[in-house]
Amino acid sequence: MLAELITIGDEILIGQIVDSNSSWMAQRLNAIGVAVKQITSVSDQRDHILKALAEAATRAEVILMTGGLGPTKDDITKKTLAEYFGVGMRRDAPSLENIERIFKKYTNRPMLDVNRAQADVPENCEVLLNEQGTAPGMWFEHQNRIYVSMPGVPYEMNWLMDTHVLPRIRERFALPHILHKTILTAGLGESFLAQQIEDIENTLPQHIRLAYLPNLGQVRLRLSASGADATDLQNEVDFFARQIIEKLDTYIVAEEDIPLEVAIMKMLGEKGFTLSVAESCTGGYLSHLFTRHAGSSEVFQGGAVTYANTLKQLVLGVKNETLNEFGAVSEQTVREMADGARKNFYTSYAVAVSGIAGPGGGTPEKPVGTVWIAVSGPEKTVSRQFSFSNKRTQNIERSAVSALTLLFQMLNGRL
Amino acid sequence: MLAELITIGDEILIGQIVDSNSSWMAQRLNAIGVAVKQITSVSDQRDHILKALAEAATRAEVILMTGGLGPTKDDITKKTLAEYFGVGMRRDAPSLENIERIFKKYTNRPMLDVNRAQADVPENCEVLLNEQGTAPGMWFEHQNRIYVSMPGVPYEMNWLMDTHVLPRIRERFALPHILHKTILTAGLGESFLAQQIEDIENTLPQHIRLAYLPNLGQVRLRLSASGADATDLQNEVDFFARQIIEKLDTYIVAEEDIPLEVAIMKMLGEKGFTLSVAESCTGGYLSHLFTRHAGSSEVFQGGAVTYANTLKQLVLGVKNETLNEFGAVSEQTVREMADGARKNFYTSYAVAVSGIAGPGGGTPEKPVGTVWIAVSGPEKTVSRQFSFSNKRTQNIERSAVSALTLLFQMLNGRL
Repeated sequence: MLAELITIGDEILIGQIVDSNSSWMAQRLNAIGVAVKQITSVSDQRDHILKALAEAATRAEVILMTGGLGPTKDDITKKTLAEYFGVGMRRDAPSLENIERIFKKYTNRPMLDVNRAQADVPENCEVLLNEQGTAPGMWFEHQNRIYVSMPGVPYEMNWLMDTHVLPRIRERFALPHILHKTILTAGLGESFLAQQIEDIENTLPQHIRLAYLPNLGQVRLRLSASGADATDLQNEVDFFARQIIEKLDTYIVAEEDIPLEVAIMKMLGEKGFTLSVAESCTGGYLSHLFTRHAGSSEVFQGGAVTYANTLKQLVLGVKNETLNEFGAVSEQTVREMADGARKNFYTSYAVAVSGIAGPGGGTPEKPVGTVWIAVSGPEKTVSRQFSFSNKRTQNIERSAVSALTLLFQMLNGRL
Repeated sequence: MLAELITIGDEILIGQIVDSNSSWMAQRLNAIGVAVKQITSVSDQRDHILKALAEAATRAEVILMTGGLGPTKDDITKKTLAEYFGVGMRRDAPSLENIERIFKKYTNRPMLDVNRAQADVPENCEVLLNEQGTAPGMWFEHQNRIYVSMPGVPYEMNWLMDTHVLPRIRERFALPHILHKTILTAGLGESFLAQQIEDIENTLPQHIRLAYLPNLGQVRLRLSASGADATDLQNEVDFFARQIIEKLDTYIVAEEDIPLEVAIMKMLGEKGFTLSVAESCTGGYLSHLFTRHAGSSEVFQGGAVTYANTLKQLVLGVKNETLNEFGAVSEQTVREMADGARKNFYTSYAVAVSGIAGPGGGTPEKPVGTVWIAVSGPEKTVSRQFSFSNKRTQNIERSAVSALTLLFQMLNGRL
């Protein structure tokens, strides 16, 4: 079963945004056994959209489009689709109600004609009601092909895919069973992991594949199996997953596809422990990693973002002498930050990060990318130095992930 | 002058990586006056690559490819190109030397035949020596079209583009000038903006287009113009941009393509003001928005992530009675949070956010999505209530952007 993705919008072709929708859609489709044949980004131009649709229809059975559904003049996807299918437009009553509901909820302004016109759809479409936004999703069947049009706003598209599009595709096609089992590891690089489980990998049957998905010091191992019988498949995958998990032992963070910080909060929560953070160079990103997850408030109590040294002293109790003698980016400071957070915020554990994210602020002794991380726990405080790159965003992300890894290792008894 | 981009590789089609190369290339091409007609991602399959090349050649004069140049079996771009052009292969001596140099420098392993084979190129190509890696760049001229093949590794591709490809394209074509002017607005929805500037939009000449790029309460307006004379074009675009800016007045955040938080830090920095934050439901995300930008430490002093009520009292000085009487998500609490941050952290301004991000924690009076935001400044404290959705991630993002908008409005005299 083949699908194609068409993203419509000049903003991609001039490089103003990165098309991350396609990657998300491809992942979701692959997970239900639909392969993506091609991804095409085209401009907001009638003839270009028409041609892309016609070409895609020669290659794939399902064509998923995103973009060009806004209320303004440059959004021409709907009328172009009507032209492609040779039909007129109709105003969809449930979509109009949905738009009215959203307007009532989020604005106190009167609706304009262009807002109402968002409820206009090609006559031959079945509307996929978009509860997340004003642009309706649309499902078309035409000459043995399925076409779906969705807004380009990521969370609206995600919701439409999960709620409407994927279940419908599953219903319509006899798809093979595809099973993925993900094992999250931390603390060991890709090639060393591969070496450790080489023997197991060599015994995998043809229909089970192992992929290494490394990301900033964590490696996800994904077993993907496809076949006719779901139960057999599950048993086989479990068998090999168990061998890998036993072999990699304490490098295993989770036996499911969850982020490291969620695994950590689970470990803490099960023992009734709490957590706080003290961030300098990560600037709130580490807190965000925890708090973006529902239920985090049961474990995560809060923290301080102490960019200014004054705040390191006032909020975390870092000593003036420590800052003067060793500087903000030092083992001494980061340990006082972690201990101070644990004490002042009354938590079982605290993590602190202080570093030079760049591009400015580096010195010969402490170049950009120098980062100190400390974890303070009930029994001890552990600190480590890291040397990352000269790229700010990367340094922030790597620092946060390294802080998570260090905390995980303490909880797991590896420190 | 039209170009097309073809990215070759299964990893994009299974969603394992996001194609950020295309966005980068499109930006660079646009900047020298080359418009990108289409971006196509295809699999590592001979017939698929051949078809994509043939189709691209009907639409564009320059076709830039990335990917499929590695040493392993699944990398078939080179032999497919040779087939497409109807030529054989030759081993390129400078490329072989380059590969030998890189091997000597970075590994102490012996070179294998597959490594040497990376120096094999189609006979009709001009090699663009890749000093950053082992896969050579290749420049082809064939039936009035230019084809360029580059490795998919971002930094190698970037280097080849800037060093070889873009200068050559510039040399070969008399390029029109392409100009983009972006105006950032906040506080007014897309359709209302469109209504306000409808008259101006209707007077735009054919060669100047206006696009609306909405994102969470902010809308970017982008004027794109192409023509022969750079000065004329600049004057024309400035003329229309000026009209739009005057019409939208205080909704204008910035007359350039920068994020709202950067515009805010500029406004604060120019007056020597400082900023801190007090976050509950945004959980560090608001701090992260500021601190991800280089130089933010000049304005942003830090803040507190106070998930637990204890921390709201300890760090921000929120009164126990306030929390008991009105609750954590209330106007009274969020104002005390903002005032407390401004006072305790010694900053000119402070922003506070407290809300129910969900999915749990809602009540009939305060459902999930209820968010209070306050801005505390030298002259006054302003607070607003918002009702967002039932989606946690969205609520976090919208709360942060609304906090930025409220702060911007205070700085801009709209409150």
